[in-house]
Amino acid sequence: MAKKLTNRTEDYSKWYNELVVMADLAENSGVRGCMVIKPYGYAIWEKMQAELDKKFKETGHVNAYFPLFIPKSYFSKEASHVDGFAKECAVVTHYRLKNDPNGKGIVVDEEAKLEEELIVRPTSETIIWDTYRKWIQSYRDLPVLVNQWANVVRWEMRTRLFLRTAEFLWQEGHTAHATKQEALQEAEQMCNVYADFVQDFMAIPVIKGVKSESERFAGALETYCIEALMQDGKALQAGTSHFLGQNFAKAFDVKFQSKEGALEHVWATSWGVSTRLMGALVMTHSDDHGLVLPPNLAPWQVVIVPIHRNDEQLAQIDEKATEIMKSLRAKGVSVKYDNRTTHKPGWKFNEYELKGVPVRIAIGPKDLEKGTVEVARRDTLEKQFMAMDEVENFVPSLLNEIQEHLFNKALDYRDGHITEVDDFETFKELLNTKAGFLSCHWDGTIATEDKIKDLTKATIRCIPFDVKEEEGKCILTGAPSKRRVLFAKAY
Amino acid sequence: MAKKLTNRTEDYSKWYNELVVMADLAENSGVRGCMVIKPYGYAIWEKMQAELDKKFKETGHVNAYFPLFIPKSYFSKEASHVDGFAKECAVVTHYRLKNDPNGKGIVVDEEAKLEEELIVRPTSETIIWDTYRKWIQSYRDLPVLVNQWANVVRWEMRTRLFLRTAEFLWQEGHTAHATKQEALQEAEQMCNVYADFVQDFMAIPVIKGVKSESERFAGALETYCIEALMQDGKALQAGTSHFLGQNFAKAFDVKFQSKEGALEHVWATSWGVSTRLMGALVMTHSDDHGLVLPPNLAPWQVVIVPIHRNDEQLAQIDEKATEIMKSLRAKGVSVKYDNRTTHKPGWKFNEYELKGVPVRIAIGPKDLEKGTVEVARRDTLEKQFMAMDEVENFVPSLLNEIQEHLFNKALDYRDGHITEVDDFETFKELLNTKAGFLSCHWDGTIATEDKIKDLTKATIRCIPFDVKEEEGKCILTGAPSKRRVLFAKAY
Repeated sequence: MAKKLTNRTEDYSKWYNELVVMADLAENSGVRGCMVIKPYGYAIWEKMQAELDKKFKETGHVNAYFPLFIPKSYFSKEASHVDGFAKECAVVTHYRLKNDPNGKGIVVDEEAKLEEELIVRPTSETIIWDTYRKWIQSYRDLPVLVNQWANVVRWEMRTRLFLRTAEFLWQEGHTAHATKQEALQEAEQMCNVYADFVQDFMAIPVIKGVKSESERFAGALETYCIEALMQDGKALQAGTSHFLGQNFAKAFDVKFQSKEGALEHVWATSWGVSTRLMGALVMTHSDDHGLVLPPNLAPWQVVIVPIHRNDEQLAQIDEKATEIMKSLRAKGVSVKYDNRTTHKPGWKFNEYELKGVPVRIAIGPKDLEKGTVEVARRDTLEKQFMAMDEVENFVPSLLNEIQEHLFNKALDYRDGHITEVDDFETFKELLNTKAGFLSCHWDGTIATEDKIKDLTKATIRCIPFDVKEEEGKCILTGAPSKRRVLFAKAY
Repeated sequence: MAKKLTNRTEDYSKWYNELVVMADLAENSGVRGCMVIKPYGYAIWEKMQAELDKKFKETGHVNAYFPLFIPKSYFSKEASHVDGFAKECAVVTHYRLKNDPNGKGIVVDEEAKLEEELIVRPTSETIIWDTYRKWIQSYRDLPVLVNQWANVVRWEMRTRLFLRTAEFLWQEGHTAHATKQEALQEAEQMCNVYADFVQDFMAIPVIKGVKSESERFAGALETYCIEALMQDGKALQAGTSHFLGQNFAKAFDVKFQSKEGALEHVWATSWGVSTRLMGALVMTHSDDHGLVLPPNLAPWQVVIVPIHRNDEQLAQIDEKATEIMKSLRAKGVSVKYDNRTTHKPGWKFNEYELKGVPVRIAIGPKDLEKGTVEVARRDTLEKQFMAMDEVENFVPSLLNEIQEHLFNKALDYRDGHITEVDDFETFKELLNTKAGFLSCHWDGTIATEDKIKDLTKATIRCIPFDVKEEEGKCILTGAPSKRRVLFAKAY
């Protein structure tokens, strides 16, 4: 008997940890803080990659690959960057092992010590801008619109599958421009690309905005972000896009000759999303029965399960199932037909429910007689019988309906969890009860932001693009404010 | 004036090094032995990845992702593997940096020393088999057919772009099977998958065979390989597939319950190809003018270059070029139209010749009058004029012809460089003159193989599958032999 999944209301955190493992998305490895992304989880990540990569290319970007290692001295070149990044890193100090002279396995060869330590990249701005110096001389070489798919390492003390791991997979875009205006447009464009992807494919509504100064990326002048809300009322930053000004161009001496012949520093952006999105996907849609996947990202959109008592029945069902599978595939639907005889139908029902397959089609002996099938949708758990020859037209529209329903459900929840708050007592109380985004006035100072964080653990998630101007008083200090910002506890 | 490419006859090695950089494939980075794969080079790698990934999936494999780091102790578990791999590795010893108390940048925090050192993966058998122990209990869990796309690090002393770099990109398949027979079939199947890819897409003929014992992968019982021949007569191993027996299952205690209820160790394979293939691609087809790319892997199969004296002419050419581009794209041909006014036509001709674009179409003012275009193919450098409306049908068949021509040319060269040799003096002489594969009798001992390597630097590249049985005498010792093997100097 399989282990039962903990309920969300009982322990949301435990529910998440169990679900990621039980649904075969990922598991912890023998290496502290590093996860194994299992085939089913990786198949979802591949679908995300494919769609994002397409969007990047449609907006003129190309992929490249830069070294995993970064010499320690590179980090010291951009002052604010080193403070934000270079501390909790994996440090390579030696390049050889040898047999232990005492015969106890292998040991580090102390003679093979690197002259300069190498850092396993926590992000690649420094090594990339060191390269761009060679690529960029003239305005003809600009813009440089490069993206990299890579693994990165940040030595986190407390890790959780997908949400915070020492090693994770991501993409990092790094662009170089001739003008400030163009770089700002690029950073904003990529924030929009992320928002479209997360909303249309992951079915997760997001709020677009900019970060407050203290939440900005180390080295950025402006950080654009998309913020999502999980089912426990905590926010999750789903993607960021940074306007880096000329900071890295100055640190790495990247200049170009303009059309007018002047020598100028290049303007930069960087932007990234990571396997963290997998965590957001799980926490937004899934329920106490298991994973719920939006059809646009499900490795299998439909699973067909035969219900049979003997081989003869199975052969008859095989024939019908294959027909249905073919007609659905012809319409671009991905279908798995699970006719393994090593597992019972009940086991399969549980398995695909746990794995969040959007639509399940079951075919039994009675269906053969009547020419029907049972179609069940994972999101609402509703089932219905229908004529076999209707399936081909019904399922594609059902998949669209599920995709839309998941988004709208998440949107309703999210919109129901944005609360305007004007006094600090209510603010504190709401954080511990309803949670969600608290829309409040703030006096604009880092000191106030820090103090609110110390008192409540809530941070400013973003200053939304679509915020309206209004007079108000800071939730903590009462100092004047011209707009509300969104506070929340966050992952 | 751009730097001129060294001729192959003058200095083949220099020609290669220059070409990789000049054609924008890759360049050295600020990190010893680690390369930057530039966008044009990466675009070719992406095409390789896409095709290989498709072939892996068609043969039932799924992708997953395992940690970058491997605890040092894991390597000690499989005795032959540790000797082959664990020595020249990047070793992570610390996980934190701190500000230098003397104010000189950042230093390693000696308090943040890892209890056990972590090795940056040189290959992933150990960490993967440590994981498979958790995945495999019953025959129902088998086979496990997993592939990983990843970066790996081997601390090579002498490095060359693509051919031998400290960090490189690759895919590594790791499969687990219930029977020896099934694992052997898998290893052989993947060798065939590689051969088909390299021949059909890279247009490189390969010889399939098995490695001699001393050239086998560390931990393998049999290594299947495909061997290609470069234009300088040196061989290059283009892909390997290993039958690992039960070695890793025993080292990591991976057992399964068979249908009959017995507890047995699992059988294993692993197989991989890497960015090294990029080196093979360059060295097989390219010439003294630059890169020559097979159409099946070219990022742009066709480039259209306008030749114009003024804006009015350009506008007219734009119109025609756009028509041609559309009609070719509709036929699945990838086309770039380069109508930049920042670069002259002559510069563009050179650039796309250097970058190996298979077909160039030029349109000038006279072409507009006559309704013609000039079509040039990169492989033979032949040019011809033709009516604009013929292009749409001509170019797709020309691309097929180029693909085939490149393969046949390489095949002719390769077949002309397999020489049967029966005495050691001729063997030594040929290695220094014609080179290529030398087909010789060998007494089957490691001692003889080692001695030949010491004397000549030539190694046994493979024992071909299609070798015929014949009586003969070992080229070095004169001891009896039943079949010829292929010797060569190799990359």
